[in-house]
Amino acid sequence: MQTRPRIAFLGLGIMGLPMAGHLLNAGYPLTVFNRNASRTWDLVQAGAKPAPTPSEAAKDADFVISMVTDGPDVEQVLLGSDGAVQSARTGAVFIDMSTISPDTARLVYRNLLQHQIEFLDAPVSGGDVGARNATLTIMVGGKQDVFEQARPIFSALGKRITYVGSSGSGQVVKACNQVMTAVNLLAVCEALVLAEKNGIDPQVMIHVLSGGASQSWSLENLGPRIVKGDFSPGFMVKLLQKDLNIVLSQAQRCGISLPGTSLVQRFLEDNAVHGEASEGTQALYKALKRVEG
Amino acid sequence: MQTRPRIAFLGLGIMGLPMAGHLLNAGYPLTVFNRNASRTWDLVQAGAKPAPTPSEAAKDADFVISMVTDGPDVEQVLLGSDGAVQSARTGAVFIDMSTISPDTARLVYRNLLQHQIEFLDAPVSGGDVGARNATLTIMVGGKQDVFEQARPIFSALGKRITYVGSSGSGQVVKACNQVMTAVNLLAVCEALVLAEKNGIDPQVMIHVLSGGASQSWSLENLGPRIVKGDFSPGFMVKLLQKDLNIVLSQAQRCGISLPGTSLVQRFLEDNAVHGEASEGTQALYKALKRVEG
Repeated sequence: MQTRPRIAFLGLGIMGLPMAGHLLNAGYPLTVFNRNASRTWDLVQAGAKPAPTPSEAAKDADFVISMVTDGPDVEQVLLGSDGAVQSARTGAVFIDMSTISPDTARLVYRNLLQHQIEFLDAPVSGGDVGARNATLTIMVGGKQDVFEQARPIFSALGKRITYVGSSGSGQVVKACNQVMTAVNLLAVCEALVLAEKNGIDPQVMIHVLSGGASQSWSLENLGPRIVKGDFSPGFMVKLLQKDLNIVLSQAQRCGISLPGTSLVQRFLEDNAVHGEASEGTQALYKALKRVEG
Repeated sequence: MQTRPRIAFLGLGIMGLPMAGHLLNAGYPLTVFNRNASRTWDLVQAGAKPAPTPSEAAKDADFVISMVTDGPDVEQVLLGSDGAVQSARTGAVFIDMSTISPDTARLVYRNLLQHQIEFLDAPVSGGDVGARNATLTIMVGGKQDVFEQARPIFSALGKRITYVGSSGSGQVVKACNQVMTAVNLLAVCEALVLAEKNGIDPQVMIHVLSGGASQSWSLENLGPRIVKGDFSPGFMVKLLQKDLNIVLSQAQRCGISLPGTSLVQRFLEDNAVHGEASEGTQALYKALKRVEG
């Protein structure tokens, strides 16, 4: 029997925990690290090995996967003083599945290359539901042959797995994804406010519009939650803010403004000011309503 | 055998012509009027009766359907000096399927009521393809019992047929539809510009994003046309401009601003200035590119 490559998994949050579980279930020898070690418990019961630091986790690993919140976290767990790079073997492949800036991804790539470690940026969409059901969309940047090496791992985690180009490209496509997520949500909120101001039953409106050229995932999934007054996450306002900061910084570096995306970011800031940063992104509706009265 | 109600159909444009054809095929005795009479020819060959004025067309009609461009056109063919109201019998039902303002629809409704004529506003979405394939989405405002009388007619023209509320409500829901159409299109254009500026293959981006939470009809249908440089209509810039004028006037009357929709309208104005008013709405991409460089 062929031996499965050994994987170190860093970051067991709402996304990372179920993803690591899928890898364990698929038979990969797994070492896990999380800042709050109590979250490793269930995986350790199921056969994973806990590690006190990313560096300890990465010893002997063939693949090191990071799934943390932001760019500085990625730099810390991979490149920091007790980061994975300190112990990883030459020829190992690091895969970051967090959403960070394309520039940070390329910086990590170049840094690891000096240690003869390969790096893929492989952010995901599909949220916690996609992580639990192993139906994530995964967009991968880096060397194509390294992507092919990692493909079986991605297949255990998601459904639509696409190589999108050189290092950083995965993060660029994720940025495009967040642009659409943000602006499509604004579309739903504006349509709902217009309907409501004119005495239209919003559920009827959603039903009618779901059939045609104004259809979107946001309309069908977030529209009904807004109508019910359900602003629980889903995907949190503060995380979309973080992602749109990445998007708009990247846009600025390219000399573009993305006016619709910027507009959404301003509404999300209003959400944060009103204590709604940990609500679902559909709380954008409340920010719009505050402006529209 | 039960006699089919007689229908007068006013306006045989890119939408009206195939719609009238479906009614003729369904066995309705049909009289047709069009400003340019040459467009009646095929229908007359197939058994329709031509009429020189809306008033002539509406004589003896049980239902009068109008499918014209704008509010003033509707007022003219229904209420004008040779309009349908001049000859229509008491108890007839007028159905306007054009996209006009809710206020104009209510004005026509009240005016016709004085002549003991019923009125439904029943705008559609689904475009020329929906008209040809009888798959239109139809959103109907007016009295519910009158809607039920007209339902068999709607069934010959569309698939998702919904009663949405009192007179004018059909036009409000259509306005909501256009809000989403407009802002979803902006989302696609911003994502494409960001991808392109970062060297990402836009077809790959569209493929990746179509699977998840940023999915929309616009992404899947207009995205590929933009990538191919195909800016033929579909739905023309100048018609979306007209519809967004209706939307934004209605919004203003409600005291709301609809910032995303307003943003799209400004880009469409730039399209018009650059001679692109008769291109498909996906030409919005070109307007965005002119700003973004």
